Amino acid sequence: MSKPLILITNDDGIQARGIQALARAMAPHGRIVVVAPDRAQSGMGHAVTINGILKMEQVTFGVPEVEAAWQITGTPVDCVKLAIYEILGQKPDLLLSGINHGSNASINVIYSGTMSAAVEGAVEGIPSIGFSLLNHAPDADFSACASYVEKLSLSVLKRSLPVGTCLNVNFPDLPVSELNGIKICRQSAGYWEDAFDKRTSPGGAPYFWMTGKFTNPDQGQDTDEWALRNGYVSVVPTQFDLTAHHAISTLNQWNL
Amino acid sequence: MSKPLILITNDDGIQARGIQALARAMAPHGRIVVVAPDRAQSGMGHAVTINGILKMEQVTFGVPEVEAAWQITGTPVDCVKLAIYEILGQKPDLLLSGINHGSNASINVIYSGTMSAAVEGAVEGIPSIGFSLLNHAPDADFSACASYVEKLSLSVLKRSLPVGTCLNVNFPDLPVSELNGIKICRQSAGYWEDAFDKRTSPGGAPYFWMTGKFTNPDQGQDTDEWALRNGYVSVVPTQFDLTAHHAISTLNQWNL
Repeated sequence: MSKPLILITNDDGIQARGIQALARAMAPHGRIVVVAPDRAQSGMGHAVTINGILKMEQVTFGVPEVEAAWQITGTPVDCVKLAIYEILGQKPDLLLSGINHGSNASINVIYSGTMSAAVEGAVEGIPSIGFSLLNHAPDADFSACASYVEKLSLSVLKRSLPVGTCLNVNFPDLPVSELNGIKICRQSAGYWEDAFDKRTSPGGAPYFWMTGKFTNPDQGQDTDEWALRNGYVSVVPTQFDLTAHHAISTLNQWNL
Repeated sequence: MSKPLILITNDDGIQARGIQALARAMAPHGRIVVVAPDRAQSGMGHAVTINGILKMEQVTFGVPEVEAAWQITGTPVDCVKLAIYEILGQKPDLLLSGINHGSNASINVIYSGTMSAAVEGAVEGIPSIGFSLLNHAPDADFSACASYVEKLSLSVLKRSLPVGTCLNVNFPDLPVSELNGIKICRQSAGYWEDAFDKRTSPGGAPYFWMTGKFTNPDQGQDTDEWALRNGYVSVVPTQFDLTAHHAISTLNQWNL
């Protein structure tokens, strides 16, 4: 049997340590093609470039087993679309995104370019996983993730995933010896208490930096946040059907 | 009782006809503040500006009843956050986004800046609605939307919405006399068959424009696409909990 074709992307840019760790972990298990943004695209959510042009360029990549690597001028979702329709000319057997520098648990899933790439894979019908480590630092240590990346990816390759879903996988920032295993979870109801740092330009004009504090009133032990706080690798099955099905009957009672 | 405070935003930019139609329809019903992008931000999804700065400027707006209007250098979600925390200094009673030039039914909800602004409102606990007309043209005629915008907005102000949800409202491009009323729906399973238009720059470098064709194998009569094809205004309750709850038990059986 030929080796599976694995597409790897991220939102921290093709130079990030996290995507190298991901490619290195999966190199023994498939033909790896990397298609990733040419610069950091954190917080890009599901943005697509529809009012501008995209360029791509083949580049060298730090992991010699990688079959080809391309950098794209667009967003993570652009990378997935260009990879399938212009670079591979086919759908890969598996799409992996990350490993993100920083958490994509809880509400972060909707802001995350890393997870939006995985969601786009699911829209395309490709088994897809987004991986994130709870450490923002450019020099974060991803070594504890490797064995879990392999296990989860090989399981998904073998069994595929329920239709219309992908996986949102987050790692606590712990050495592998302190990880307690994998826990299947729901997205917690945490959110960001936003704030802005208001400054003044040299010319006297006000401008703003977005800041904020993550707040989580949801103490459920079935949540990703609980799992991560307790040393588990959290796995949330994530879908692109945003319908609040439970709310349909309520709205029908309004007789609009 | 004092008039409700209504925040209006969009993704087509503060100059678009659709946002003017929305503000005009709601002007009799509340104190309106417009906070919208200074240029078109279609397809921006849930992008937020975390690696750059934001600027804002008070501007005049074509609807004289509007209390204040601000244009922002960022995305629709940036607009919601800046509006609440720097402009209003409070959460509005209602957040309305649109009226978008073009459909946000089906899978378009995940790419849409208009809907991401409404989803962000829901994350903030604000009753929120995104409106879209199935006509992309800059000079689209929004007159058939007005009475439905009023009815839906006043209903939501009166009753609020189920926790964690907002509404995704789409209008067929029909005169008001041909609209068949409102239908509560689920998001259809349609998707984009992507394609790229490959061109060459004057300097000889390849570049790409994203194109594609919307395809909908989902013939369910409970979908937004069915409702719109049959002359109904579609209303989909939309949530930011992306957990595929039904997939949790399947994944637990994998014994990861």
